[in-house]
Parts: sequence; structure tokens; C-alpha cells
Amino acid sequence: MLTVLSVAEAKAKILAAVPAGTEQERILLTAATGRTLAEPVAAKEDLPSFARSTMDGFAVRAQDSYGASEAMPALFDVGGEILMGWAPEVALAPGQAMRIATGGMLPAGSDAVAMVEHTEMLGGKSMALNRAVAPGENIILRGEDLRAGESILLPGQVLRPQDIGVLAALGAQLVTVAKKPRVAIFSTGDELVMPDVEPKAGQIRDINSYMLASWVESCGAVADRRGIIPDSRDALRAALQETGTYDCILLSGGSSAGTRDYTAACIDELGKPGVLFHGVSMRPGKPLIFGVVNGKPYFGLSGNPASAMVGFLLLVRPLLWQMQGATETLPLFRAKVERNLSSASGREDYIRAWLYAEGDELWARPILGQANLISTVVRGNALLRIPQNSEGVEAGESVEVLLI
Amino acid sequence: MLTVLSVAEAKAKILAAVPAGTEQERILLTAATGRTLAEPVAAKEDLPSFARSTMDGFAVRAQDSYGASEAMPALFDVGGEILMGWAPEVALAPGQAMRIATGGMLPAGSDAVAMVEHTEMLGGKSMALNRAVAPGENIILRGEDLRAGESILLPGQVLRPQDIGVLAALGAQLVTVAKKPRVAIFSTGDELVMPDVEPKAGQIRDINSYMLASWVESCGAVADRRGIIPDSRDALRAALQETGTYDCILLSGGSSAGTRDYTAACIDELGKPGVLFHGVSMRPGKPLIFGVVNGKPYFGLSGNPASAMVGFLLLVRPLLWQMQGATETLPLFRAKVERNLSSASGREDYIRAWLYAEGDELWARPILGQANLISTVVRGNALLRIPQNSEGVEAGESVEVLLI
Repeated sequence: MLTVLSVAEAKAKILAAVPAGTEQERILLTAATGRTLAEPVAAKEDLPSFARSTMDGFAVRAQDSYGASEAMPALFDVGGEILMGWAPEVALAPGQAMRIATGGMLPAGSDAVAMVEHTEMLGGKSMALNRAVAPGENIILRGEDLRAGESILLPGQVLRPQDIGVLAALGAQLVTVAKKPRVAIFSTGDELVMPDVEPKAGQIRDINSYMLASWVESCGAVADRRGIIPDSRDALRAALQETGTYDCILLSGGSSAGTRDYTAACIDELGKPGVLFHGVSMRPGKPLIFGVVNGKPYFGLSGNPASAMVGFLLLVRPLLWQMQGATETLPLFRAKVERNLSSASGREDYIRAWLYAEGDELWARPILGQANLISTVVRGNALLRIPQNSEGVEAGESVEVLLI
Repeated sequence: MLTVLSVAEAKAKILAAVPAGTEQERILLTAATGRTLAEPVAAKEDLPSFARSTMDGFAVRAQDSYGASEAMPALFDVGGEILMGWAPEVALAPGQAMRIATGGMLPAGSDAVAMVEHTEMLGGKSMALNRAVAPGENIILRGEDLRAGESILLPGQVLRPQDIGVLAALGAQLVTVAKKPRVAIFSTGDELVMPDVEPKAGQIRDINSYMLASWVESCGAVADRRGIIPDSRDALRAALQETGTYDCILLSGGSSAGTRDYTAACIDELGKPGVLFHGVSMRPGKPLIFGVVNGKPYFGLSGNPASAMVGFLLLVRPLLWQMQGATETLPLFRAKVERNLSSASGREDYIRAWLYAEGDELWARPILGQANLISTVVRGNALLRIPQNSEGVEAGESVEVLLI
């Protein structure tokens, strides 16, 4: 007998049943945004590899400036200018200063930069500095950004623009990332037609394979819409037998009890261990089937779009990230609810809502309408989570928010 | 004399100076996620176009069930089964029930569905219902999701997976979206070398064009890295003169005062009105140049990566969305800061930080290190905003958060 699991139990079971992905590929840095890094990245040498100025001014020895003031400036011999992109050829002598621009390399013997605003040229060869600078002032030290050997990115990180930047800084033209999991997406149901077909009475257009494909792509995977399977056990069996090249299989629909039963049966027929659970104590999305065959995950999501979406976000998405070696870390956002919401204890509820800012606070307006309406999902920008042990929340209470 | 603007003034000036984009294209629905819709979308017909069951059970006339109870069930003649995807051929007679599965089309004459759990078959032809159902119970009415003519998506909306879903439901195979703005990205500086080059003393690898290209692509635009421009007015002028085919030009670098001056001069030389402002009262990112020539925006961002990123996020990104006809609406998230942060009044500060959840609260740990270090941006996942009129925040105070 298959029992109904809590969302947390279901998620743990799914993540434990499917091994983390290990397949990797080397790709161009410029194509790596949003991909999951599969190698540790450390600095091979100090970054920067030399001390740099952060201001326009003069490279000096700080000690030569001590005691300088408006009334009693420190005087320096100007020993030339440091060209950007070149190493100074000579070291700074005591009492000497060299012109330097932001980003320029400090000459040996210097340990600070005096800002040009605090200096005055006296003729062509002398400079007066009207305040003291401390050692290290207005410079970035060699290795201050990263020291040789220092770790900066770890396997499992999803690469953001700034990560691409640091990889460029370290000279990485290619990066090793996790291969994109390939996800087969089927919609099932005799009532479904493709979007290009004018539905007859009793028919509706397929929504879920399009929506799910878009969600799948949004978490670093490849979506392959495999079309509509009629409500026939043979058709479903045949479709599932052609999924050998995929890493994950999503079915949606088959909402009637009979179809649900043979979806489970067809997964069991494919191999071991087969269906691991059937039903999760959440609303919407309760009748969710999860099975594993030869280490490959099969999901049977609800036919109604809001339920399929909630099932995907809570239970499929974390697995797709895990298959890339990444941990899905959603930020914890909270908002206050506009009005009372009731829920049944023992069940996690996900309520569609519109999030908006009111002064310094984030508020959520629940969206009315049944969960089986696509319009309620489209009109929302968030799902509000009513925890399993709660019988509801009161107006003004703060709840967890999942952005959609 | 060009004055330093506040962030809000600078943003308003930028958005007012560049017309909203109007160029459109028709693309496949399956490629439209993340693109900005350029047409209003309304339902052409009622969705669903017929009343559907949301449960497995029996289509009935609700009034025939009134008074039914466990002790005194209502009896129905079972008039057959409604096949999924087909319109029932006959209307329901009074006292009659028809088997229906979830998603099935209600027969004429029925106005509710009795859940199978509340029924019992008596022989093959009769069904006993042990509780009353109300009109409309367990069904979705025709047009309950969307009524014919009802608006569901507006121009300017950035398409999410659920929007792709509703477009599929409405039979849209192609959608009209804003063309992607084409952005030319240059890094400037004699000290810069490409990532594939081993830097000599005094040189560093280009970070910004790689990081900025990744950010540009993340807001629906096309990034074209146009390479490194040496610190030469002629080279900059020549590079800018080849940007005719782009919709927006990003320069970064040229952090020294001299380079900044001729960056502004070269933009002015290109045409009218030229540079509109030079400097924004924010940290990092203050020395930002913005100009418009023939309606086309030119940005001169700082050479240091954190400053370039802050300038991009606050002032370039909103414009790239506007060029697609979209309004950038960032959710207002707040977090409590771990420790006191000082700021100068009259300047907006953006402090790199690590956001994390602690119980029900979101906290931010400021990341130490200079703004010109790429590592501090990589180690953070957020920027904390210290408003212009504030002299800092105290530990435990709540601040606005920008996710990075």
C-alpha cells in the first residue's frame, strides 16, 4: 500500500532515489551563464599579480609623507610617469614620487598613492603633498583580490555574471560544467489537442507540456516535448519504452482514477524499483506519482496546470538541479497576507497570490479561483505556503513566498 | 558644468532620454520564455469552451440530489459514460446520472458532479448517492478560466512559463515580442589583455566585457563583446564610430581622469545631444557617464568590476527593459544587517553581502573588501542599499536588498 507523504518526505525520497549527476562537458566561458560548475576554481597566481593604484595621483613611500599638512607640505621629486599596462622600470628612491593613474602598477619601493587632489606641482620636477598617506592607502595589494591557490568557485555553483567575470580574470576560456539533463515531457489525455488545432466540444488544448518545457529550461535542463499520449495503457507503455535516451521523464494529465492507476502500473512494468510513492499531502498537486526505473526518475504530475506547476516547483525542480550537481537554494522570502486563509492541518497549501510592496513591507493578495484554472497562475507572481501543521493564517500574518 | 545626480534623477533622465522600443518580431511560442510581449492577449472564445468535471464521478442535476443522505440516498438511473474528449450526445434526463471522469464534458441538463466516493452502484443500471451536491459543485463552468474577449496578458509583460501555458491554451503558436536590443560592449584600458593571454607585469585580464555581456543577456538583450580599446582618443573615436548597428553602447574602464574626459569628449563628438551627465551620487559606481546621440544611449561605466556591475544594475538594466517595452519591476526584498554600516549622507551606498535565512528572518552579512575586487562580488549574493539620506544603518536594522 502506497501512503501519502509530506512534501518534505517526498522531496527527500526523490533526492535520495536518483544519483547526483556526474556527466560533464567543457564549454566556452561565454556560454556558461546559468550552467552548473563541475570543477573547483582557484586562483593559479595572485590576483592582481602586482600592487595597483585605485586613484589618480602619485606613487610614494608613505613614510616620506608623514607629518605633511596644508601648512607644511611634504616635497617630492617627480621621477616620471607610470604608463598603464607597463611595469615601472626603476624603483622609487626615497623622497621620490611617480605619477600614476587608476589601475597603474606601483613601482618597487612605493607603498601608497597620494591622490592628485592633495598635491600641487611646483615647476616640472617637484610635487608638494599637503597631507600624509598611510602605507597601503589608495592601492590594491598584490593578491588582495585572490591569493595564489585561493578557492573562489566550487563545483555545484550555478554560474552568474560575476562568476563569469572572475573566470575571465583567471584566464578560463573553457569551463567544465554539468551536462544538461534531458527531460522528456508528455501530456496525457484523450481530451487534449495540440495548440494549433481548433478544439471540438469536449476537447481542450494542451497547456502543460508547453508550460513544463519552459520551467524545465529555466533550471538548466533541456526539455523535449514528446507530444500527447491518449488515455490508453498500450499507448502509454509504448511512449515510456521510447524514453531510454532521457535523464528524466515528466508525464502530466491522466487525472482520472483509472488513468492514474495504469500510469503507475506502466512505470512499474518498466523495471525496478518502479513507483516509490503516489500522493503527496499538498494542495494543489496531491495526486503526484514518483517512480524510479534503473536509476531514472519518472514523474506523473496532475493534469491541471496549477497542480502540475506546484508539483514541478516543489519536487521536480530540486531534482533537476541535483542532477546537475547543484543544490537548489531558494532565498527565504516572506510577505504579509491581505486576508485570512484557511487550510487543513496535515496538508501543505500553496496559494496563488500577487506580491506587492507597501511602504517597506511586502504584501500578498491571494488570487481567488480554482487551482485548475491557468488564469489564476498567470495572474499571480507568487505562491504562498501554508505549512502542514497550520490550519490557516490570519490577515497581516507573515508567510513564506515562492516566486513564480 | 555637469553636476552629479542622485540615482533616482539619473535613472529618470536615462529613461526619459531614450524612447521605448517599438521594434517587434513574431517568434515561436516555444522560444518565447523571457521575451517581452508586444501585443495584448485576450481569449478569443470561452476557456474552457464547455463545463468540465473536476472529479471522477457522475454528472447529475443537483436538484435531484437534494435531501440525499447516508440513511436516505438519492437514486439515479445511470445513462452511460461520458468519454474523454467527446461531447455527450444526449442530454441528461431528470433523475438520470452519467459516469464522468476528471476533465470530462458535462452533458446538457447536468449542473454538478457527484464524487464517486459518495456513490454506490446498485446492479448495473442504478446508482445511490448518499449526500446532496450543490449546483456548480465539482465542475468548472464554461468560461470560468477566461471569458471570450477577456484580457489575460498585456504588452510589456516578460513571458514566464505559466504565460507560455496560457498562450498554448489560447492556440497561439507564434507570439509578437519586442526585438532584443543589441548591445555593443567595449572594455577600455592599456592595461587590459584578453582572458587567453598571460598578463605581463602591469597588465590584467579583461573582466568587465565578459561579466557585462552575461548581465546583458540576462535581461533579454543581445550582447556583442567588441573587444578592448586602448587608452587613446583616436582608438576610442574609431570604435564608437563603428557602433551604428547597435541599440546601446556600453564602455567600461578608462577610470583615470584623463581617459574619462576624452570618453565624454568622444561621445559629444559623435552627435547631439551628447553627454547628459557625468557622475552619480552612489558608491560604488560614481564616475558614470551617460550620453545620447541620435536617440541611442552610450554608457561609460567604471573600470572596476563591482562599480561597473552596480552601474549596470541600477541604470543600464532598467533602460534595456524599457527598450523592450517592459517595465523593470524588482520585488522589494528586505533583510536585517548583521552589523553597523556607515555611509555618507547625500550618497546611495550599495554594500555587497551574503543573504541567509535565520529562522523566519532574512539576514545579510556584509562582505568586507574593497569595491574594486571581483572576489567580493563573487562571494556575495546581494547588494544592500543604504539610502541617500542615511548616514548608515545599525546592526539588526532592515535594509533593501538587490539580488545579484
